[in-house]
Amino acid sequence: MTDLSHIDGLVAPRSVAMIGASEDVTRIGGRPIAAMLKAGYAGRIYPVNPKRDTVQGLKCYASVDDLPEAPDAALIAVAARMVPDTIEALGRKGCKAATLFSAGFAEVGEEGLAAQTELVALAHEHGIRLLGPNTLGVYNVDIGYYGTFSSSLDTGYPKPGNIGIASQSGAFGAHLGALARDRALGVSMLITTGNEADITVADAIHWMAERDGIDVICTYMEAVNDPAALLAALDAARAAGKPVIALKAGRSAVGAQAAASHTASLTGDAVVADAVFRDHGVILVRDPEAMMDIAYAASKKIYPAAHSLGVITVSGGAGIVISDEAERIGLPMPAMPQAAQARLKALLPYASPVNPLDCTAQALNDPSLLESFTRAALEDGGYGAVLCFLTYVAGSPAVSDAILAAMKPLRAEYPDRIIAFCALGAPEVLERYDDEGILVFNDPCRAARAIHAICETRAGERATKLTAANSVTLPEHAPDEAEAKSILSEAGVACAPESRAENADEAVTAAEVLGYPVVMKILSPDIIHKSDIGAVKLNLRSEDDVRTAYDAIMQAADTHAPDAAISGVLVAKQLSGGVECLMGINRDPTFGPVAVFGLGGIFVEILDDVALRICPFDAATARDMILSIRGAPILNGARGQEPADIDALAQMLSQLSVFAAGAGERLLSIDLNPVLAMPQGQGAYALDAVIELNEGAQ
Amino acid sequence: MTDLSHIDGLVAPRSVAMIGASEDVTRIGGRPIAAMLKAGYAGRIYPVNPKRDTVQGLKCYASVDDLPEAPDAALIAVAARMVPDTIEALGRKGCKAATLFSAGFAEVGEEGLAAQTELVALAHEHGIRLLGPNTLGVYNVDIGYYGTFSSSLDTGYPKPGNIGIASQSGAFGAHLGALARDRALGVSMLITTGNEADITVADAIHWMAERDGIDVICTYMEAVNDPAALLAALDAARAAGKPVIALKAGRSAVGAQAAASHTASLTGDAVVADAVFRDHGVILVRDPEAMMDIAYAASKKIYPAAHSLGVITVSGGAGIVISDEAERIGLPMPAMPQAAQARLKALLPYASPVNPLDCTAQALNDPSLLESFTRAALEDGGYGAVLCFLTYVAGSPAVSDAILAAMKPLRAEYPDRIIAFCALGAPEVLERYDDEGILVFNDPCRAARAIHAICETRAGERATKLTAANSVTLPEHAPDEAEAKSILSEAGVACAPESRAENADEAVTAAEVLGYPVVMKILSPDIIHKSDIGAVKLNLRSEDDVRTAYDAIMQAADTHAPDAAISGVLVAKQLSGGVECLMGINRDPTFGPVAVFGLGGIFVEILDDVALRICPFDAATARDMILSIRGAPILNGARGQEPADIDALAQMLSQLSVFAAGAGERLLSIDLNPVLAMPQGQGAYALDAVIELNEGAQ
Repeated sequence: MTDLSHIDGLVAPRSVAMIGASEDVTRIGGRPIAAMLKAGYAGRIYPVNPKRDTVQGLKCYASVDDLPEAPDAALIAVAARMVPDTIEALGRKGCKAATLFSAGFAEVGEEGLAAQTELVALAHEHGIRLLGPNTLGVYNVDIGYYGTFSSSLDTGYPKPGNIGIASQSGAFGAHLGALARDRALGVSMLITTGNEADITVADAIHWMAERDGIDVICTYMEAVNDPAALLAALDAARAAGKPVIALKAGRSAVGAQAAASHTASLTGDAVVADAVFRDHGVILVRDPEAMMDIAYAASKKIYPAAHSLGVITVSGGAGIVISDEAERIGLPMPAMPQAAQARLKALLPYASPVNPLDCTAQALNDPSLLESFTRAALEDGGYGAVLCFLTYVAGSPAVSDAILAAMKPLRAEYPDRIIAFCALGAPEVLERYDDEGILVFNDPCRAARAIHAICETRAGERATKLTAANSVTLPEHAPDEAEAKSILSEAGVACAPESRAENADEAVTAAEVLGYPVVMKILSPDIIHKSDIGAVKLNLRSEDDVRTAYDAIMQAADTHAPDAAISGVLVAKQLSGGVECLMGINRDPTFGPVAVFGLGGIFVEILDDVALRICPFDAATARDMILSIRGAPILNGARGQEPADIDALAQMLSQLSVFAAGAGERLLSIDLNPVLAMPQGQGAYALDAVIELNEGAQ
Repeated sequence: MTDLSHIDGLVAPRSVAMIGASEDVTRIGGRPIAAMLKAGYAGRIYPVNPKRDTVQGLKCYASVDDLPEAPDAALIAVAARMVPDTIEALGRKGCKAATLFSAGFAEVGEEGLAAQTELVALAHEHGIRLLGPNTLGVYNVDIGYYGTFSSSLDTGYPKPGNIGIASQSGAFGAHLGALARDRALGVSMLITTGNEADITVADAIHWMAERDGIDVICTYMEAVNDPAALLAALDAARAAGKPVIALKAGRSAVGAQAAASHTASLTGDAVVADAVFRDHGVILVRDPEAMMDIAYAASKKIYPAAHSLGVITVSGGAGIVISDEAERIGLPMPAMPQAAQARLKALLPYASPVNPLDCTAQALNDPSLLESFTRAALEDGGYGAVLCFLTYVAGSPAVSDAILAAMKPLRAEYPDRIIAFCALGAPEVLERYDDEGILVFNDPCRAARAIHAICETRAGERATKLTAANSVTLPEHAPDEAEAKSILSEAGVACAPESRAENADEAVTAAEVLGYPVVMKILSPDIIHKSDIGAVKLNLRSEDDVRTAYDAIMQAADTHAPDAAISGVLVAKQLSGGVECLMGINRDPTFGPVAVFGLGGIFVEILDDVALRICPFDAATARDMILSIRGAPILNGARGQEPADIDALAQMLSQLSVFAAGAGERLLSIDLNPVLAMPQGQGAYALDAVIELNEGAQ
């Protein structure tokens, strides 16, 4: 269990000291005090400033030592060079948590980073945990605590609610808070982590996951500074049934971070992070607005069992637009059962009761139609979510009473379904629907996207548990092809049947054990490009073929590489008729070994069509991964091929992931290319294997 | 020149008769009068109702015949069966334009459709043009004309402005209008076309294209009822420099409409329509909100020459989020020139002046920083658009004066650039920026997307002119392969060099003229699967090969198809070393012949990776099309291939399109598969050709 009690002090303190307190309410040392006084913070505020007796009407203390008690939290707004003394004083006093507004640390270069590292050591020596430095701070609307100097408060205070925001960026976090406020969305908590010298955004997420009153967590991050803590935090949130909606920025740096090995060149930080986040149930967004849309939908705490949408509309056109968007994003809109269609048709001829259910402008004159259609969608359609496109009709004060009367019983009868309106009108009219638990959006496509994200979150709960990794012993030096295959075969990764032979007789024996046809290639650590010198022979169908090929290979080696050490040949069963794939492992600097799967050729080289996942994972997960690529129809038997043995591929990929997870940091990469997926029931085999080790590491 | 003068009467009438006028302001015959009285319509309103003397305080007429003048427009709200008499009366009176609110026509089935067809004939007999039936009508805010019964007016009137909306759907069109109104966006005109018995959405677009005061046209459509008129309207809008922003709904019906031939199965109405719209400079959207975002941006009438974005930000995080989105959508964000970076660095150390340009929270204390950074972006960066992420800072009334003072001179000095803010705050504060010509968005990603669309519109102006089609004479019956190739070769579509031969000597002569190696295949209309019976021979490298192959082919035909009529063999130069592509023509029911281009194999079969365009088009356009597919890198020499002869492909595709455009309705499809694109400078050749004709048609 992670101990996050220090964050209680930072975010929900009973008392706070403002070190560097200012009378000027526009200054960093003045803003927090002004905001708390205005918001009626219930705790005790202790301004600290040697030059003043009072600050903003409060008694001011000359130093930390003069404080009447150890404050739960300290806010530090003094110059960087004065911070260490302040920390020491806080330590003496017994304060356990400090928010460091002060800038001039890691963000200004090497020297600042050194000072920051020392500062953390000093703080920990004194039992103090740090938020920042270079942070905009935190707020906690529920208790009126504003440990922040954000000017976003100049344009209004947040509305309390069950959404929390954890952001590495101060200004962007405050932007999210202000965005929520401007749309009257309840965000009780903002924690911005700045330089993350000590406390990270992962800690903030984890703390919110365990905090009563927070049901939805929004997070903005750039770097993942503590991957293990982040994954633990995400798992805690998932366990608590709180969705994490994440905007991970810095995607356009993809490619700059491409690593050396072949498969690595296809990935990149952002792509790996996406895969990891999705594995852990995170809802990924790119727009701040989409984040708030989904957070809003999630704030109602309804996660329907069915991932499907029923649409009720007063406009045929809108019904089509929503259907188009639903299909584009993958939100199913199954048709209504026939019997229910007939019933609705009797109620309202000339209207389409399929899905979308068009109750036409008649619903304007007769709100009982709206009720009948919505009830049918919930009861007969069984949709997880029902979206009613009511546009300006619902915004009319004259009509809203009747609509509310129609919907309230349905809202009560179907507590486990999402009911949403697309409506335009005055905020005070639309708020009445929201107050009854009906989601209100003004754009039907944004509504559909938010609903889809919520339904998928529920679907994500089915994610498989990770398989524990075995411990693996790696050889001292990078293995050659035969050794690599032998290591992997032992780990359960199927390689094409093959054996070494030191002379022509052994080669013939090997071929006869394996069964013709076979391929033969020279075994020599000194010959890299074997094909180029004629030291690889394919399609050998008889003893004669094998003997001729053996002589030819040895002759070729003698001619082109007279000094090479030759340890014989590798004789392998020649497989054909399968689909060529590739699998690999690459070590991500943040998340460790990442498995990659793709079809070979253009799917990888031109289309970047690969699936990624951090290791280890089970065969069911591997199967999902394999089927997620765009080229998957080829494995399923498109283009006149027999369906490939996807089960065998999945088994192999999972075993590879378990091996990689157990192999430790010395394993740099594994490249199995090609892997041949044979027709169903006939297995999958790696035809080549390269294992790359960090020879320096232990 | 299309005559659209009748639409003047419908949308900008000096007098209007309401047939079926009602005292009840919530009824269809009551709403328009109430709305016009409230809005202060400057024209004359004539209620018509035999049962009343006055309606809503206006003198009411018993019949159309009693009216004191021929009204410019008639609004008809009587029952469907009474409409013909009304039309006749209007004809007698001399009215030229009628809006038919009445429903019960084509939308209710066969009988209604028949009545509708008769009605149009009747109206045209009397010189009357019809809007509708089943339309919600039109409004024209500038003159206070509300020929509509939309209840959207219950929640407020539109704000005048230079945006017009043309919509097939009434309720959805009114939703767009209300959406614009709720965000204070000026929409002066809404025209909804309902059943389009006479006037179509194309007419409405065309009329707006020629209407002073409308600078931006938004359109919602489902069906394209008059493709020629639509293309003419789009071209008129483009010529007038007015962007058309279109939401074409009904995309999820794609696939249901797949036609018979191979290439057709890859397309579908929506995809063809997209291609056509893009060709004509239309901005395509999927969301109503995106439509309004782009319309808003366009309403400022600034179309920068440079398709590039400079970002000024007070939050490093927001800068990254915007960069990510810009990269995703293809909006270039080039770096600032080095000298300018150095200058800005001197002004504000520790801030990044590359692009995004981070002027940090310092800009809050010193708005001259904002001015310096923005000026540098405009002057030194030369960006077409500059987006300033100012969030709640710009929303603070205290700061907004300083920001306005900083930006006003820049706005004046760079009239040809987009300047946009991402800002949060009270509408009255943000409006002040908008009033100065600065775009204001509250979401930075939506801002980036709208800016991108506007910059692309300008880029679209470079679209090439269409080549005029020649007239083409097609054979009476579907041609065989050799005839098809000969027809296409004459039309400038390169086919693999080949000739017919009736005996072995002729075959040898042909092979020697063509040059070895050659392929040979039997010529018989009775043998379809030539390869299966051994009647195709590849890789013939000498006279001996040719003679042996000739005998073998004849023998095979004799054995497997003794009754087949044989007209000899086809000897063709065997080509190799190129990239396999496919080209084709398919007749779209709406837009006529559509050309398709793709690589062969999985690119087409698994990935639907094809480019489409209506015929005809020139080689430059064909080149754009070819390079637009995802697999284009293969043609450019990826995977170790030599770059293919894209110029030859483009020439061939353009010639094919010219041929198809001139061939008339009898041409159903052409399938060239494969087309071999040889290495650069060596041409491109169709290896097979199938032309399908509609044998029944003339």
